[in-house]
Amino acid sequence: MPWELPRNLDTPALVVDLSVLEANVASMATHLADRGIALRPHAKTHKSIEIARRQCDAGAVGLTVATLGEAEVFAAAGFDDLFIAYPLVALGPKAERLRALAERSRLRVGVDSSEAAAALGRTGCVGRGIEVLIELDSGQHRSGVAVREAPEVAAACRDAGLRVVGVFTFPGHAYAEPGAAARAALDEARVLSEGESALRGAGYEIEVRSGGSTPTVRHASAAPHEEVDHAAVVTHEQRPGVYVFNDRVQVAIGSCRTEDVALVVAATVVSRAGPGRFVVDAGSKALSPETFPYLGGYGSLAGRAATGDGGATVSRLSEHHGVVESPSCRPTVGDVVALVPNHVCPVVDHFDHYIVIRDGDIVDRWPVDARGRLT
Amino acid sequence: MPWELPRNLDTPALVVDLSVLEANVASMATHLADRGIALRPHAKTHKSIEIARRQCDAGAVGLTVATLGEAEVFAAAGFDDLFIAYPLVALGPKAERLRALAERSRLRVGVDSSEAAAALGRTGCVGRGIEVLIELDSGQHRSGVAVREAPEVAAACRDAGLRVVGVFTFPGHAYAEPGAAARAALDEARVLSEGESALRGAGYEIEVRSGGSTPTVRHASAAPHEEVDHAAVVTHEQRPGVYVFNDRVQVAIGSCRTEDVALVVAATVVSRAGPGRFVVDAGSKALSPETFPYLGGYGSLAGRAATGDGGATVSRLSEHHGVVESPSCRPTVGDVVALVPNHVCPVVDHFDHYIVIRDGDIVDRWPVDARGRLT
Repeated sequence: MPWELPRNLDTPALVVDLSVLEANVASMATHLADRGIALRPHAKTHKSIEIARRQCDAGAVGLTVATLGEAEVFAAAGFDDLFIAYPLVALGPKAERLRALAERSRLRVGVDSSEAAAALGRTGCVGRGIEVLIELDSGQHRSGVAVREAPEVAAACRDAGLRVVGVFTFPGHAYAEPGAAARAALDEARVLSEGESALRGAGYEIEVRSGGSTPTVRHASAAPHEEVDHAAVVTHEQRPGVYVFNDRVQVAIGSCRTEDVALVVAATVVSRAGPGRFVVDAGSKALSPETFPYLGGYGSLAGRAATGDGGATVSRLSEHHGVVESPSCRPTVGDVVALVPNHVCPVVDHFDHYIVIRDGDIVDRWPVDARGRLT
Repeated sequence: MPWELPRNLDTPALVVDLSVLEANVASMATHLADRGIALRPHAKTHKSIEIARRQCDAGAVGLTVATLGEAEVFAAAGFDDLFIAYPLVALGPKAERLRALAERSRLRVGVDSSEAAAALGRTGCVGRGIEVLIELDSGQHRSGVAVREAPEVAAACRDAGLRVVGVFTFPGHAYAEPGAAARAALDEARVLSEGESALRGAGYEIEVRSGGSTPTVRHASAAPHEEVDHAAVVTHEQRPGVYVFNDRVQVAIGSCRTEDVALVVAATVVSRAGPGRFVVDAGSKALSPETFPYLGGYGSLAGRAATGDGGATVSRLSEHHGVVESPSCRPTVGDVVALVPNHVCPVVDHFDHYIVIRDGDIVDRWPVDARGRLT
């Protein structure tokens, strides 16, 4: 899909096509509502109060966030049902911040160690509404515990005075290669189901199995499977984030179509580096230098091989320069091009605001409210 | 050098050791002053008014910046001699911004195309003190023109009413591999010298040859060389940036010692992922996912193999998780570790402020004033 960019942009700029965003928000909400599954979108993708409101207006039960700082931004904006889907270690300044937050919002927090459980217990937030979900490893091998270890972590939570209400996982291995999402979704469903059983067996009331990522969400809630029965495959809650915008990775692994990409980085051609390539003003501080084994480069020209197969690709990044390899595209210095980033989440974090367009015209400007809330 | 971190940090945090920073600022200033070369440090590394003041107090003649937005921040803070060492294309909102900036500061701007020269001429900044340096490619093959093309670009500048005062280059190929810096410095010196001759031959008064990067700066201003005479090797002006902090790349390529690293990212251990590894709360939104062919991973534990040879390395990054591989180091969840980033410049851009320490105690907190000034 060729992007029609407004004139006179101050580049590099983060540009969102509102019509595509609206369609993405609506279709995910409908998809999950039709299956009786709660949507708790991950706000770390957009970090935007405006977009979070649109997600909740479309039926999201609350928000997922990655950090206490993100939770504070959304709580201050009136979002009162937040899940910090991260193994939060509430020590030092975070203990007091968590106490303050727990007074204004319903809070769920991830735990995957007895140390984190003890720290959370010591904050004194017990009884003010903080609920705990045990993080399980469903195959990404990042954070989270194995199912067999879940009862021990849950016991540490109980000992610390915390209420264990569920299990969660992030099936990040869905991003390993194109085609991995279906298998990762089954891993997710199985691990959540087994984790729930293990904790129920140990006497815990499990209210929620929370999973989800943009690649797995349509698989996780789909038809039954030979190894896992339908009730287990259907999780209670899904936490996709990227779907609001989509990106080059999602196109490459088949989670969306090229025309579902709602965000580009607009960049100005600043130099011609040589035959078959040119230089734009979006470097590693605008696009992200994150790479994926199945995608060459750091982004691609929108409408020209968003999947990376043979078209114009951002092949090198330095801080303020992106080198675009393009055998056929020979723009002039001063031209503005639209680049689809590999992974949209870290890219958004580089910008203060979104330029919101519809039919090529600027219709709004939204702040990236929770930008840089890393702590 | 084992880093002594203060207690109760809210992590991830950007921590600067003031004693090491002071030594780095002083030694570079002395090194260049002794050789009669002007220091115009690149402020894109630190984006900090406080650090820029210290550099100028130590003798820097002005600042180098990468963007108009950075120039605006430093101009507003009273820095009145700025070089935007970038092929700035002054179209759209940038034209008016440049006009406003030129009224308050002495401005030098990089140009490497006739289109950019024409756009700069059309801003109406002519005569208000904007001076142009032609960017030359000394071997990085990013932006900049070949020496033989420089007179044509200079002519376009003259036609646009601009005053061409010099040539500049960034010898970025010094980062290609350990040992590349000496050769890159010679390339830089040769290209600047040839560029100056070509432009003088075409009738331009060349006042400045500007080069520099942290790896090349000590070579570029060092002893004579068989191919290039001493006067040519000695550039008029050097623009190193990273030297104020240094980083894992600089240690790896031999630009500095491990004990010259003045900045770490403090991160909390949040999860134990498995035998020989643990997970910290510094991911790709804190460290940068930028990689280098001669360095494994994305950072290393300070004091433990900053060069990456055999010690604890950040081997995987997702947005808020860093997986550290460490056969020997087995910290507890809640421990805070000091990580040396691969490349400090994009890392600084992820944070709002520096925690400044001396002898392990917090002595100050400085904003990253020009954070995110991408445009």
